[in-house]
Amino acid sequence: MGYEYDRAIAVEQIDAGTYAANLDGGWSVGGGLNGGYLLAVIGNAIKSDLEDLGHPDPYAVSAYYVSPSVAGPARVTVRHIRVGRGTATVAATLSQFQDDGSPVERITALATYGDHARISDDVRTTAVPFDLPPYDDCVLTSTAPPEVKAFVPMLDRFAMRADPANTGLIGGPPSGSTAVQAWFELADGRPIDPIALLTVVDTLPPVTIEMGLPGWAPTVELTAHIRATPAPGPLRIRHETRNYVGGCFEEDCEVWDSAGRLVAQSRQLALAPLAQ
Amino acid sequence: MGYEYDRAIAVEQIDAGTYAANLDGGWSVGGGLNGGYLLAVIGNAIKSDLEDLGHPDPYAVSAYYVSPSVAGPARVTVRHIRVGRGTATVAATLSQFQDDGSPVERITALATYGDHARISDDVRTTAVPFDLPPYDDCVLTSTAPPEVKAFVPMLDRFAMRADPANTGLIGGPPSGSTAVQAWFELADGRPIDPIALLTVVDTLPPVTIEMGLPGWAPTVELTAHIRATPAPGPLRIRHETRNYVGGCFEEDCEVWDSAGRLVAQSRQLALAPLAQ
Repeated sequence: MGYEYDRAIAVEQIDAGTYAANLDGGWSVGGGLNGGYLLAVIGNAIKSDLEDLGHPDPYAVSAYYVSPSVAGPARVTVRHIRVGRGTATVAATLSQFQDDGSPVERITALATYGDHARISDDVRTTAVPFDLPPYDDCVLTSTAPPEVKAFVPMLDRFAMRADPANTGLIGGPPSGSTAVQAWFELADGRPIDPIALLTVVDTLPPVTIEMGLPGWAPTVELTAHIRATPAPGPLRIRHETRNYVGGCFEEDCEVWDSAGRLVAQSRQLALAPLAQ
Repeated sequence: MGYEYDRAIAVEQIDAGTYAANLDGGWSVGGGLNGGYLLAVIGNAIKSDLEDLGHPDPYAVSAYYVSPSVAGPARVTVRHIRVGRGTATVAATLSQFQDDGSPVERITALATYGDHARISDDVRTTAVPFDLPPYDDCVLTSTAPPEVKAFVPMLDRFAMRADPANTGLIGGPPSGSTAVQAWFELADGRPIDPIALLTVVDTLPPVTIEMGLPGWAPTVELTAHIRATPAPGPLRIRHETRNYVGGCFEEDCEVWDSAGRLVAQSRQLALAPLAQ
């Protein structure tokens, strides 16, 4: 019943500002859980905490990843820093539990929420969407061979259609590009709302895959700006790095909706996979 | 004795993880204090807290601005979230005091620190520096007329030489551009270290000044990635927005050093000045 994505990010309030979650192993990558999925779990707990106060939508969320999460029980705590008329700012923490029951912090985050319905229609965006081949000419990443899917089980959680020029992304040799791009939908067609955008911005493989550095690139910090609720239909997403230094790189993500709106921008600082 | 910038960002430990500061009115803009200056005060307290643990340099800092700071006493508290071998992650808060002595939170921040000396020389930056006219052809912003300097006293704290094409930035009519750029040094020649870069990324006037929206643009959130310690000499800085929607805009900043290195990248989400 309902969408699997909603079950995966579900939270249940167990005390004031405290929410229980059950992290879904279907969002695994390289033995850990995807950072965007975890961000949406935190984002969903914050939404539960703030929507009755008139602030249902993330405007900006910054997350610092301090230890790898695993499938199973987790807790999100939300502390109000300032609840105003236009926006609310909170601190949130996602923790899991050791065998003796003591908590281990996985992610610490700050966020400002508001209400997209309050944003005016004064759109002066100068950015233009990137070029991406038509949906049907792109390559569904969930058709990857079994050895890839064993490393990235989460490929089954969404319908991502990659630009065929991103040869590294679709299982071929690295293209040498410093960008990766694709069409994106959730696997079960669940509409992408502002909370799901927190997942979308971290679903593409790291751009390092095209730079000849395959493997998982752990996120140090990720900040997402959610600027609008997307129109229905597949999203166009792109990651790019411009400053790879000493095994550390920034990754900028843009998410464009079917109506041609730049609905989300994110940037993360990540550690490159160790050179093979 | 010493540099005025060091006096302005000085902190004194008063308890474990607690630092006293005295916010400098010389860094005022539009009746508040500059967000980059405040970020360096927080960054300096974190540095004091972490340098003995081997993590003197900011890698990533995310700050959420919840109320306007004023000149005078302030307190920075630093909480360790994870102190590892390569990096340390902390939460920090800058507070001031009401007449009855109760604290008011001004800025809440998360940060990951490390040591720039540990970063390898494997530089694969693909970004190229922006075009900026030679230093001597640019316009010193501290020569602005008295009515401008009354609104932006901090112009005296640095030697900023603005691109003459940024006519709005140098007191003329708005150019219509969505970017502003300049050369930058601190007024007293104090070398720019990683902590001072936290100030540098927020010293340019908001790009909205060139879009015909003069005035102060309050920062909601600012994340800075400090990627290297700059070489000596003037820095080149640029702010650009690409997604202005409903009075809210992102501002990307790049800081290039005299050796042609992209030493800092930041992005902030800001509120546009109310249309005149």
